[in-house]
Amino acid sequence: MDAIEVIRAKRDRGELTTAQIDWVIDAYTRGDVADEQMSALAMAILLNGMNRREIASWTQAMIRSGERMDWSALDRPTADKHSTGGVGDKITLPLAPLVAACGAYVPQLSGRGLGHTGGTLDKLESIPGWRASLSNAEMLAALRSAGAVVCAAGSGLAPADKKLYALRDVTGTVESIPLIASSIMSKKIAEGTGSLVLDVKVGSGAFMKTVREARELAETMVALGTDAGVRTVALLTAMDRPLGRAVGNALEVAESVEVLAGGGPADVVELTLRLAREMLEAAGVAPVKDPEKALEDGSAMDAWRRMISAQGGDPDAALPRAAQTLTVDAPASGVLARLDAYAVGLAAWRLGAGRARKEDPVSFGAGIELHAKPGDVVRAGQPLLTLHADDAARFPRALEALDGGYAVGPAAGEQLPLVIDRVTAA
Amino acid sequence: MDAIEVIRAKRDRGELTTAQIDWVIDAYTRGDVADEQMSALAMAILLNGMNRREIASWTQAMIRSGERMDWSALDRPTADKHSTGGVGDKITLPLAPLVAACGAYVPQLSGRGLGHTGGTLDKLESIPGWRASLSNAEMLAALRSAGAVVCAAGSGLAPADKKLYALRDVTGTVESIPLIASSIMSKKIAEGTGSLVLDVKVGSGAFMKTVREARELAETMVALGTDAGVRTVALLTAMDRPLGRAVGNALEVAESVEVLAGGGPADVVELTLRLAREMLEAAGVAPVKDPEKALEDGSAMDAWRRMISAQGGDPDAALPRAAQTLTVDAPASGVLARLDAYAVGLAAWRLGAGRARKEDPVSFGAGIELHAKPGDVVRAGQPLLTLHADDAARFPRALEALDGGYAVGPAAGEQLPLVIDRVTAA
Repeated sequence: MDAIEVIRAKRDRGELTTAQIDWVIDAYTRGDVADEQMSALAMAILLNGMNRREIASWTQAMIRSGERMDWSALDRPTADKHSTGGVGDKITLPLAPLVAACGAYVPQLSGRGLGHTGGTLDKLESIPGWRASLSNAEMLAALRSAGAVVCAAGSGLAPADKKLYALRDVTGTVESIPLIASSIMSKKIAEGTGSLVLDVKVGSGAFMKTVREARELAETMVALGTDAGVRTVALLTAMDRPLGRAVGNALEVAESVEVLAGGGPADVVELTLRLAREMLEAAGVAPVKDPEKALEDGSAMDAWRRMISAQGGDPDAALPRAAQTLTVDAPASGVLARLDAYAVGLAAWRLGAGRARKEDPVSFGAGIELHAKPGDVVRAGQPLLTLHADDAARFPRALEALDGGYAVGPAAGEQLPLVIDRVTAA
Repeated sequence: MDAIEVIRAKRDRGELTTAQIDWVIDAYTRGDVADEQMSALAMAILLNGMNRREIASWTQAMIRSGERMDWSALDRPTADKHSTGGVGDKITLPLAPLVAACGAYVPQLSGRGLGHTGGTLDKLESIPGWRASLSNAEMLAALRSAGAVVCAAGSGLAPADKKLYALRDVTGTVESIPLIASSIMSKKIAEGTGSLVLDVKVGSGAFMKTVREARELAETMVALGTDAGVRTVALLTAMDRPLGRAVGNALEVAESVEVLAGGGPADVVELTLRLAREMLEAAGVAPVKDPEKALEDGSAMDAWRRMISAQGGDPDAALPRAAQTLTVDAPASGVLARLDAYAVGLAAWRLGAGRARKEDPVSFGAGIELHAKPGDVVRAGQPLLTLHADDAARFPRALEALDGGYAVGPAAGEQLPLVIDRVTAA
C-alpha cells in the first residue's frame, strides 16, 4: 500500500477501506507517510467527506495508535462530558464534582484554549498549586478520593490525533465534520469513560455556527461513541451569547464556586443540572441524591474541594486578579437586545485570557465580567461590562472587538433557547 | 497574508486574487509556506478548479520565480513544440532540425521520462558524447550554428514549478488541468520562444485519456500562451497506439534518423511534417523551403548533424544496443486489430527504457520494435514485436504488460485519427 493510492481513492470520491485507513494512520504515526501527503488527504476528506464506516475506522485507528485507559477497577460507573467549546463555558468546573457527589465517577481528560474559546485546564490552573498533569495511577487515586478528576491527556493517548491535529491547524483542514468528530471521539473513547454526554455549542461564539451543522456533528459523534460501546448522548446548546456572567480564567473559577455554593447565574445553573442528569442517566446509576439537592446541601462543594486538593490545589487560596480594569457603560436606556458571544470571546482573548499560539502563557486574571445579559433592562450610563487585564495597553483592541458586539434597544432580540435539542443514537 | 487564508479561500470555492497567488508562490519558493500547506492548496485546486485569470496569475508567478530567457539577439523568429508525452513519441528529434532547415530557430528546453512515457533527453543521451546541460551562452551558440537546440532546463528556470512538481508527484495532486497547464506553460514561456505548437496526446498511452479532457487542457494552455504574448496553437493527436515502429531510446533515435534520411514510418513522417508547418506558420516566417523538400534534399539531416555535434554528440557513432532480444509472434492470421499504447509503453519501461524514480538510470538499448501496426495484415507465427533488454530477467514482466495489449482479428479495430483536432486562441 502507498500514500498516493490512498490519497487518490479519496480525491476521486471513493470510499476508503478499513485496511487503507489502518495503514495510513499507522504509517503517518510512524513517519512513513509524510506531512505533505497527510495534508493532501485531509483536504480531500474535507471536500469529499467520509461515510459512517470510514469515520468509525478512522477513529478506531487513531485510538489504536496509543493506549486505551481502563477504569473497570472502580466500584461505580464512569461518566464524562465534552463541550465543543464556547465563551464563558466553565460548566465542567461545577459539573464534574456535582456528578461525583451524585454517585458516578468522572474521569475527564481536558484541553487548553486556543483562539477565542477558553480551555478548562487554563481555568483550573488559575487556582494556586493546582496541576493538570497526572500519571494514570494518580488519576485513579484522585478518582477514588474525590470521585472526579479533570486533567491533561498524556502523550500516550491517541498520538496519531495529536500529530494530525497540529497538521490540520496549519493547513486549513480543521473545518471537517468527519475529522473533528474522529479527533474528539478518539480521545474520549481512549480515555475509557463508560458513558459520555456531548455539549455541542451552536452560534457565533461556537465552532458550529448553525443548528444544521451542529446536529450533523452531534449525530456523527453519537454514532461513533455508540459503535465503540460508550453510551453517548448529545445536547445542542446556545452559544450566540456568552454563558454566565464571567469570561476568563480565575473569573470563571469564581463563578463556578458560586454555583457550587448554591448561587450563580441562572443559565449556568440550568445547564449544569441538565448535563448532570444526562450524565447520570447515561451512566445508568441510580443517583445517591438529586443534583439540585447536591448543590444545596454542600456535597457538590465538598467534592470540588477534594477534587482540587487531590491535584495539589488550594481551594481556599485567593484567586489571581488582573491589575487593570475598565468599565463599559450602557450607551442608552432600554433592553440589552444583543451581546454577541464571539465579540466577547475575542475581546477576552485580546485582554490576555487566551493564547494566540500553543506555547503562549495565559493571564489568569484577564477577562470580562458581564453586568447584564441579553433581555435585561439597562439604564444609560450603568456598567455593562468590566474588562480585566494585566496591562492597560490591551484595552483598546479589546474595545475594538466589542464594537458592534452589543446593542441596547426597545426590546430583547431573538436568541437561541439554552438547550436547543437532544441527539441520541439512531 | 498567510497560507491558511489562501488555502481556505480555494477550499471554500472562492477565487484567489492575483495578490494571494503571487504571495503564495513566492513564499513557497522561499520556504515560508511549508510543503504540507502547498499540498493542501494543490488538492483544493485539483478538486475546486481555477478560472482562466487565476491560472494565468499562477503561471506568471511561477515564471517570475526565476529567469526568463531572451532570444531577441537572433535574426529570425523562434518556434518550439511541446508534447504532453506518449509512447514512441520521438517527433522532436526529426522536427527540431527540420524546422531549423526551413528558417526558424528552435530553442527547446526538454525533459526526461518518468513512468511509461519516454523523455526526449533520455533518447538523445543514447548518442555517444551528447550532453543535455548547456549554459545560456552555449544555447545561443548552438542555435546560431545549428538553428536548433534541445537541452535540459537550468535550475534558474521556474524554480517554483520544479519544487511544486516534485511535491505534486508524491501527494496525488498531479491530475489537475490548471496545475498541469501552468506547469508546462510556465517553463515554455520562461524559455523565451516567440511561438509554440502544443501536441496534446489523447488515448491509453497519454496522460489525457479522452478528447474532452485533452481539449480542455489544450484550450487552457493556448489561452495561457496567448495571454503571455506567445503565438500558441495546439493539435490533439492520437496516442491510443504507439507512434512509429520503435519505442525506447536508441531505437527511437535510429528511427528519427531514418525520417531525416527521407524514410521512416508513415505516421511519424506525417506528424513531423504537420507540426513543422504549424511551427513555421506560428513563427510567422516565410519558409526558406518546404518541410517535405527539406527531408528529401538532406538539409534537415545536415541540421540534425550540426545540432548533435554542437552538443558534443557524434552523429556517426554506432548507437547502443541491448544484449538480449525476444520476439513475440502473431498468435493467428488476420489483421492486427489493436496494439495498445499503454501496454507497449509499460512493457518498454519494464525492459529498462524508462525509470521508476527520478534518480534511476535508463537503459539506452532497451525498448520494443513493432513489426506491424494496427490495420496491417499478419500471418500466424510472423514476428509481431521484438523486445530489447540488457538482462533477459526483464522479459517476463514486460510480457505480462503486453498480455491483452494486442489482438489479431478478422478486421481492423477502431482507432483515433492521427490528428484529431486543432485548437487556436478563442
